[in-house]
Amino acid sequence: MTNPDVGRIDGLTYPHGVAYMAGRFLPMSEARISVLDWGLLHSDVTYDTVHVWNGRFFRLDLHIQRFRRSLARLRLTVALDDEALGNILVECVRRSGLRNAYVEMLCTRGVSPTFSRDPREAINQFVAFAVPYGSVANARQLEEGLHVHLIDTVRRIPPESIDPQIKNYHWLDLVTAQFQGFDAGAETVVIADMDGHVAEGPGFNIFVVKAGALYTPERGVLHGITRQTVFDIARQEGIAVHAGAVSEAMLRGADEIFITSTAGGIMPVTRLNNGIVGPGVPGEITQRLLGIYWKWHDAPAYTLAVNYDKDAFA
Amino acid sequence: MTNPDVGRIDGLTYPHGVAYMAGRFLPMSEARISVLDWGLLHSDVTYDTVHVWNGRFFRLDLHIQRFRRSLARLRLTVALDDEALGNILVECVRRSGLRNAYVEMLCTRGVSPTFSRDPREAINQFVAFAVPYGSVANARQLEEGLHVHLIDTVRRIPPESIDPQIKNYHWLDLVTAQFQGFDAGAETVVIADMDGHVAEGPGFNIFVVKAGALYTPERGVLHGITRQTVFDIARQEGIAVHAGAVSEAMLRGADEIFITSTAGGIMPVTRLNNGIVGPGVPGEITQRLLGIYWKWHDAPAYTLAVNYDKDAFA
Repeated sequence: MTNPDVGRIDGLTYPHGVAYMAGRFLPMSEARISVLDWGLLHSDVTYDTVHVWNGRFFRLDLHIQRFRRSLARLRLTVALDDEALGNILVECVRRSGLRNAYVEMLCTRGVSPTFSRDPREAINQFVAFAVPYGSVANARQLEEGLHVHLIDTVRRIPPESIDPQIKNYHWLDLVTAQFQGFDAGAETVVIADMDGHVAEGPGFNIFVVKAGALYTPERGVLHGITRQTVFDIARQEGIAVHAGAVSEAMLRGADEIFITSTAGGIMPVTRLNNGIVGPGVPGEITQRLLGIYWKWHDAPAYTLAVNYDKDAFA
Repeated sequence: MTNPDVGRIDGLTYPHGVAYMAGRFLPMSEARISVLDWGLLHSDVTYDTVHVWNGRFFRLDLHIQRFRRSLARLRLTVALDDEALGNILVECVRRSGLRNAYVEMLCTRGVSPTFSRDPREAINQFVAFAVPYGSVANARQLEEGLHVHLIDTVRRIPPESIDPQIKNYHWLDLVTAQFQGFDAGAETVVIADMDGHVAEGPGFNIFVVKAGALYTPERGVLHGITRQTVFDIARQEGIAVHAGAVSEAMLRGADEIFITSTAGGIMPVTRLNNGIVGPGVPGEITQRLLGIYWKWHDAPAYTLAVNYDKDAFA
């Protein structure tokens, strides 16, 4: 078994975990890509993330399907079928020993032997890794609700430039907004789109609850799998969902607000800028959705159990 | 001396060159960053590139100044003063032995030991490297002029999202346009901005020559050092320069077109989409500017000679 211990290289500490690249499983600290990879130098890369909870992958099939769509759109090639790809992800988790894991698959444009600027001459690189499960919100924030700022001095990259359905690492708008939010005392941020409507935050979608119905932005945002799971739970529960433009006023007038991400699931928001959201505690509908979300993590229909005792390729 | 030979790792070939990272000089093939670096995972990184021609850096001071501005805007820290930074770049070139080099300095947000999503907890990473001088245009294209397509089905990321004066790797719009251009038979592309005006291409600015004056986009594009050098040459030569909105019609009605980049300098464009630009050969003003551009590469005022016999830190 690959030693998944926390590693130190060049004086830096890396999280516990196991990666797969160039046909081998490696401790996380040793998983490195060339500085010349266009995945770094042009952010010419796509990815997907899935999580493992209590030893079970959640909706892995949807994540692999979305990854395939992103790859096709960017003309990136991963020479693995879905079964082999899935086995690599399972094997990263199994070797890491992690029962709760954040699992990422990515494919970069790669390096060309001559440093040619023609992307067709680069050799695409597939990488996967499993690290401990992380969340947008920490334990206190999950309990009390997050403090979010809406930032409109920087606008989410529009879909005319980058299609957000191609999961991408073009995050400098979000990072810039994060720093502005931190300056203003926020725990995280959501940013507006070019029209001034609410878009999304760093790695999450946002939902407004008003008079018992859900509202979430549709255009110019990633259609997250957790967002989709909220749609699925809402349908089961008979809660109406409206996916479309969400104004700042709707956010300010919300009964409840929550955010959704593979990194944390459904997370309540109880403070918006310097105001209180609804009663100032995680709302009833948010709590109900959140409860079902975690319950679904035991359901065989939505999950795939990792067999920690058996090599996925054996 | 670090062995700068072309390296093969994991079955991949890397260009000749020398890199600097984590306090050490390395062959280019060994320069690798963690897969967990936010420079990869969020494109949370800035950079600058400078070139060496006939053993001399061209306008290194301007590139270092711009790099400092980009770093400050992204709240990234490089714990090196300008002299130490310059010496590292010189030493990469010296150790590579390259007389004509493409030299890049970059700083990533880095890795946080816990994979925390808070960018303030990551440890910023500085990397520099020197590889053989590359150009947007090959020898034939420099001689005959490039065949460029204007693409407006994807729009350059607007400055409201990402300030282009922060030199960044958010290139998926440009890469998408490149593939569309290749499909249509182009050698490279320029893309339109959100208003439909001409913006820039993958790594270069564009100039139109009309009735003896120069026109180039100003807003929403990188203010390239080669673009600045064209301004400087034009001032010396008494050629008027207009930096402002450039329409598709201006491009189509141009007497001459050229593009500018550290990777290639001033490069003539003689075909636009399926039409001929002006007389169909590199134009007179383009040739004149190009001649002076390369002449300036010998001028001590604009250049810094590399002493290949002496360690830059000795």
